[in-house]
Amino acid sequence: MHDLIRQLREDNKTKIVMLVADGLGGLPIEPGGPTELEAAKTPNLDKLAAEGTVGLSIPVAPGIAPGSGPGHLGLFGYDPLVHDIGRGVLEALGIGVEVGPYDVAIRGNFCTIDGDGIVTDRRAGRIPTETCVKLVELLRAGVKIEGVETLIEAVREYRMVIRFRGEGLGDDVADTDPLSTGLHTLQPKAGSAGSEKTARIAAEFLRQAKEILKDQTPANFLMMRGFAKFPNIATMEEVYGLRSAAIAVYPMYRGLAKLVGMTVVEPGNTVADQMDALKANWDKFDFFFIHYKYTDSTGEDGNFAKKVEMIEALDVEIPKITALKPDVLIVTGDHSTPSRMKSHSFHPVPLLISAPATVRPDFVTTFGERPCLAGGLGQILAKTIMPLAMAHAGRLQKFGA
Amino acid sequence: MHDLIRQLREDNKTKIVMLVADGLGGLPIEPGGPTELEAAKTPNLDKLAAEGTVGLSIPVAPGIAPGSGPGHLGLFGYDPLVHDIGRGVLEALGIGVEVGPYDVAIRGNFCTIDGDGIVTDRRAGRIPTETCVKLVELLRAGVKIEGVETLIEAVREYRMVIRFRGEGLGDDVADTDPLSTGLHTLQPKAGSAGSEKTARIAAEFLRQAKEILKDQTPANFLMMRGFAKFPNIATMEEVYGLRSAAIAVYPMYRGLAKLVGMTVVEPGNTVADQMDALKANWDKFDFFFIHYKYTDSTGEDGNFAKKVEMIEALDVEIPKITALKPDVLIVTGDHSTPSRMKSHSFHPVPLLISAPATVRPDFVTTFGERPCLAGGLGQILAKTIMPLAMAHAGRLQKFGA
Repeated sequence: MHDLIRQLREDNKTKIVMLVADGLGGLPIEPGGPTELEAAKTPNLDKLAAEGTVGLSIPVAPGIAPGSGPGHLGLFGYDPLVHDIGRGVLEALGIGVEVGPYDVAIRGNFCTIDGDGIVTDRRAGRIPTETCVKLVELLRAGVKIEGVETLIEAVREYRMVIRFRGEGLGDDVADTDPLSTGLHTLQPKAGSAGSEKTARIAAEFLRQAKEILKDQTPANFLMMRGFAKFPNIATMEEVYGLRSAAIAVYPMYRGLAKLVGMTVVEPGNTVADQMDALKANWDKFDFFFIHYKYTDSTGEDGNFAKKVEMIEALDVEIPKITALKPDVLIVTGDHSTPSRMKSHSFHPVPLLISAPATVRPDFVTTFGERPCLAGGLGQILAKTIMPLAMAHAGRLQKFGA
Repeated sequence: MHDLIRQLREDNKTKIVMLVADGLGGLPIEPGGPTELEAAKTPNLDKLAAEGTVGLSIPVAPGIAPGSGPGHLGLFGYDPLVHDIGRGVLEALGIGVEVGPYDVAIRGNFCTIDGDGIVTDRRAGRIPTETCVKLVELLRAGVKIEGVETLIEAVREYRMVIRFRGEGLGDDVADTDPLSTGLHTLQPKAGSAGSEKTARIAAEFLRQAKEILKDQTPANFLMMRGFAKFPNIATMEEVYGLRSAAIAVYPMYRGLAKLVGMTVVEPGNTVADQMDALKANWDKFDFFFIHYKYTDSTGEDGNFAKKVEMIEALDVEIPKITALKPDVLIVTGDHSTPSRMKSHSFHPVPLLISAPATVRPDFVTTFGERPCLAGGLGQILAKTIMPLAMAHAGRLQKFGA
């Protein structure tokens, strides 16, 4: 599909906005009741639904609940089953740590162990970020490993990124997190020959870290997760010819956007700040990815009413986007996060395309999981949204004569 | 997809029931009228449809009417275009004849030929099974072929299974049934070099059989169909981690279930017996395939009213399933068998998923071909039903971070 798009794409001045309400899709909390989106008062989204066309997005494949990585890659038009992005890389990119072809990025979690090395708290009591920064400085000063360049950066609370740079570093190394308290941390074990050097270095890192941290409290050790190399992936500009901006508050989503070559625009901390950033950068880009976190976090918390509120808070901001007159506005989520399940789920995600000049409207007049079943887009794989966005933006030429 | 499921699957205690009403889908018998399913009074299925979600299953691909083999493989989550199961293997498995890697299994049909060898009855007057058993004994006693082990088993009426076991036996051999009376039977002809040995052995078998049966009446010869080797196919337990039971009255469907590693539970002869078997085995398995034949056989007979009756008879049994509180109950068919067509057809098959804890309900309140068009599942390939069943059963972890 990317080859076809590269062949057919036509640059013009049209602008595409993709508003991703993370975890947007939901479930009724009681039999016969509405979902979160159906319960929310969303006059602005409903208007877009009535004038545009709707459907449902299947993030990866039927039945598959995606993490944020595959969920967003699909929305950006990259097949998440082909492009496998490791968590370490995402975490690194999200805090501005570059990851190149000779690097392995790893998530580090500070933890608490007892005198026998048994994990008593996998998150070291969720130490404040300042403590994390201080401990990372201790590690930086203390860890010395031959034959590899080591970089350590604090993320937030108990989380850090570790990056090894050197020749011959594979990323097929198992996590050292035992996933439960009451167990020893695991050794970083290579799953294949090409990753044995990485495993050796990681083991040496952990050995030194244990010594350096031994008198700290509560964070007296760390675990490594998500060993990952940078994937070889074409940028949005290369594939679609779109100068693309990401307006995202949280590191993970900035990281995902950087992965496909987007420019991360600093948006401040609120959705209103994000809308300001959209307006301020309107002339500089062709494509804008706006990430809205709170529909997911409230779903993860199992708070139906709060998720409804967060959907309504987003709806209020919609006129700021439409005031800029984007040629195409897409509203969807990277996956569903039903508050009833308190987790990402496999359910298809409501999807809306507004494109005044080119859209074929359907009969649907409200934005919700069940109304979307009757929409003009049907139920489609997330990776087909970008081709549709390009088409609605007049950015794809006719195929064949 | 199987690789992905193996990677994500999570064993738990949830239970999945797949009720296959063979040939369930139908057509109106007169313009403007209901289909068989729409005409039937099905309060229990309607309740499941109202509380759960519905859609339509496309057995193989749009426009393709499947036989029982591809129809069921699709439902079990195996792509029927990839896994080609020969009829001979199915017939053998259905009567408990083992088929291994050095075997070719063949369906044998007793027939009647005249003095010139012209077929006058392709089913030898549908001889009773006892006659079939007696004739098979004659063949066993009489046929001697060098360099191959031969096994012959009666199935029912005019049908038997022949199994050749030996080195270098391919299954690319043409049927000897001319498919019409008034013609000679055909020679078993190899379609490729690797099957020439099989063709030679089959020809010798037929030569000896003709001599052995020449004075019998009406069954004085046989024809061979469906030469087939055992396919290399992963079991349901290997793919899904599901201990799977098959509750099927007819040999073909037991055979299909064995092919994917299910344990065949002896269910007696009625659907009530099948429900008893379900209950009796409830604690021993994770997945239950229940096969209901009569929606297909009445469709094949062109008996609209009788098919309606058989659907209603199945509906009455539904509470016995729901009383066991399966986490996921799927109701669908392996294909449509409209009584108006008296044959399998390509039409999508009504599909229902009941899963109280995880389903996203739609607006549909009755189970029927046309109501299902508005359902939450859309029209999906049969092979995607098992991933959805696994997801609704909470048996798939999140994909990616």
